[in-house]
Amino acid sequence: MLEDKNQKRTSLAELGEFGLIDYLTKNITINHESTIKSIGDDAAVLNFENKKVVVSTDLLIEGVHFDLAYMPLKHLGYKAVVANLSDICAMNAKPTQITVSLAMSNRFPLEAIEELYEGIKLAAKVYNVDIIGGDTTSSQKGLIISITAIGEVDLDEVAYRNGAKPTNLLVVTGDIGAAYMGLQVLEREKQVFQVNPNNQPDLEQYSYLIERQLKPEARADIKELLAQLDVKPTSMIDISDGLSSEILHLCKQSKVGCNLYEEKIPADPQLISVCEEFNLDITTIALSGGEDYELLFTIKMEDFDKIKANPNFSVIGHMVEEKEGVHLITRADTKIPLKARGWNALEN
Amino acid sequence: MLEDKNQKRTSLAELGEFGLIDYLTKNITINHESTIKSIGDDAAVLNFENKKVVVSTDLLIEGVHFDLAYMPLKHLGYKAVVANLSDICAMNAKPTQITVSLAMSNRFPLEAIEELYEGIKLAAKVYNVDIIGGDTTSSQKGLIISITAIGEVDLDEVAYRNGAKPTNLLVVTGDIGAAYMGLQVLEREKQVFQVNPNNQPDLEQYSYLIERQLKPEARADIKELLAQLDVKPTSMIDISDGLSSEILHLCKQSKVGCNLYEEKIPADPQLISVCEEFNLDITTIALSGGEDYELLFTIKMEDFDKIKANPNFSVIGHMVEEKEGVHLITRADTKIPLKARGWNALEN
Repeated sequence: MLEDKNQKRTSLAELGEFGLIDYLTKNITINHESTIKSIGDDAAVLNFENKKVVVSTDLLIEGVHFDLAYMPLKHLGYKAVVANLSDICAMNAKPTQITVSLAMSNRFPLEAIEELYEGIKLAAKVYNVDIIGGDTTSSQKGLIISITAIGEVDLDEVAYRNGAKPTNLLVVTGDIGAAYMGLQVLEREKQVFQVNPNNQPDLEQYSYLIERQLKPEARADIKELLAQLDVKPTSMIDISDGLSSEILHLCKQSKVGCNLYEEKIPADPQLISVCEEFNLDITTIALSGGEDYELLFTIKMEDFDKIKANPNFSVIGHMVEEKEGVHLITRADTKIPLKARGWNALEN
Repeated sequence: MLEDKNQKRTSLAELGEFGLIDYLTKNITINHESTIKSIGDDAAVLNFENKKVVVSTDLLIEGVHFDLAYMPLKHLGYKAVVANLSDICAMNAKPTQITVSLAMSNRFPLEAIEELYEGIKLAAKVYNVDIIGGDTTSSQKGLIISITAIGEVDLDEVAYRNGAKPTNLLVVTGDIGAAYMGLQVLEREKQVFQVNPNNQPDLEQYSYLIERQLKPEARADIKELLAQLDVKPTSMIDISDGLSSEILHLCKQSKVGCNLYEEKIPADPQLISVCEEFNLDITTIALSGGEDYELLFTIKMEDFDKIKANPNFSVIGHMVEEKEGVHLITRADTKIPLKARGWNALEN
């Protein structure tokens, strides 16, 4: 890889905190009527009229949640927003605003923060959310991103984690496991690069997996799609930590059990072939991978006909009585207890 | 200082992320009707009926914003909440909810995080705000706290930074400068302690200053007080970065100038005597100190009679036309331009 030795570097201390905020936020436009007052005061002021307000927050730490060795800053900014909007979508709500707080050490020049902010602004544009505030400061080490996402919803539309009932069908959007395999591919390339920096990787055959890892999307389309199909989810969660961990959350909070069918778990063809290459079990990847940002939800059995033909949805199981437990029904038709093997930030 | 060698240390990895969240949040109660759904789902759900929603967020980094050498964790938790609630108060709004995200390195045992959380919960109780969510993760270095505060307000009550007019009076609550001097006292004691760890400091004569630094309070009482006095502030900001910096914000955003009278700046008697001891100019401390979390606001001249007898308020100046500039009128009756010398996190 060739490095541009003439890259412009402006130090953050030159600008100062208020200068940096002014610089980063100068082109931010406000699109929502609900945003009465945005950046520039002690707080933002929002007006939701008769809607309910949905709030979620995330803290992302360099070296724990992301590795800048293969995560371009613009993608990181985009993904940080997407991960938060996904939580709003998982309430069956519509994302409307975000606040963005950044802390960075002096090794980051202004141009790097600008690139990060470009990704944040791009995501805000794509998902039509207003950036209404935040905080910018220095850190002792690395980059820290804290985003709070706000959304709106009618109270009768909210989908909590605790609404699933026995006989409800378990449905997942899109496909699962690709983001985790994308990370494995990038980790391998990083090792190769460290041994031989002149190696030019050909990542064409991994393009979908890498995109799922570096530029995931939140399923902000699902709320409207379900409304059009006249389906009201009885419970909902987003898949950030892996399918098994999320199923266990739904079951625990809804006080139900679940039968998950291995053969029904949707996988992209690229994931299948790369799992073979890496000699990894695709079901394990789907169950424990994480970062797919798809939605997992339950619906009443009688709504099956409304969704069965829709390519966005896969019915992967059904809920049972709590005492029956949470199980994976394998392709060989054996029944094994589902365990959470999702990602745990505190064990890193 | 004696150290308890038998302090209990539970590692965070033992508990895991969800275990830690469960543990920290197990006694959290919800008091606001506007909190429909709190911790435990993808997002919180809030109902503000006809009120407008006010949102502010802050990111606090160990070594940049606080020093655990003299900041007990419980006080830190309390102060982190207060700093955010102060921003909500500065919109003339009522704080109602907070989200709390924490990241900490492995050097922190569970007991330390619990102490921090005790301070957070105490502040939530004192200010009657619901803790509705957050995130808990590990950091590569030190402790990171990100808090988002939410409040409610009627639109005709909101006080922005940009509403001050020429002839408006400039008013400050409480007294100014003590928090900064408290920090100077603590810094000095830290040096003494490093030279002689057996030295037992007598901090009695600095008690008010130290309390203002370690356990500041947000002026959540002012909104109601002003309403009782039938005074509507034309602009408002909280004093986190120092009086001069905040006055310049109000002037810039309101497009006005200001005459600030040195003799009117309210100082606690303890601050006066300690400034003498440290050979520091009290006006410089008040102008540049920061972290007082008092409110600075403007009112119409005709409202002067309503506030003049109230011990919570000091009229410290008046707004003028923008072209006249922003000046300090000294005790010697000389007029010098006011400059921002507030604290800048990016220069640290």
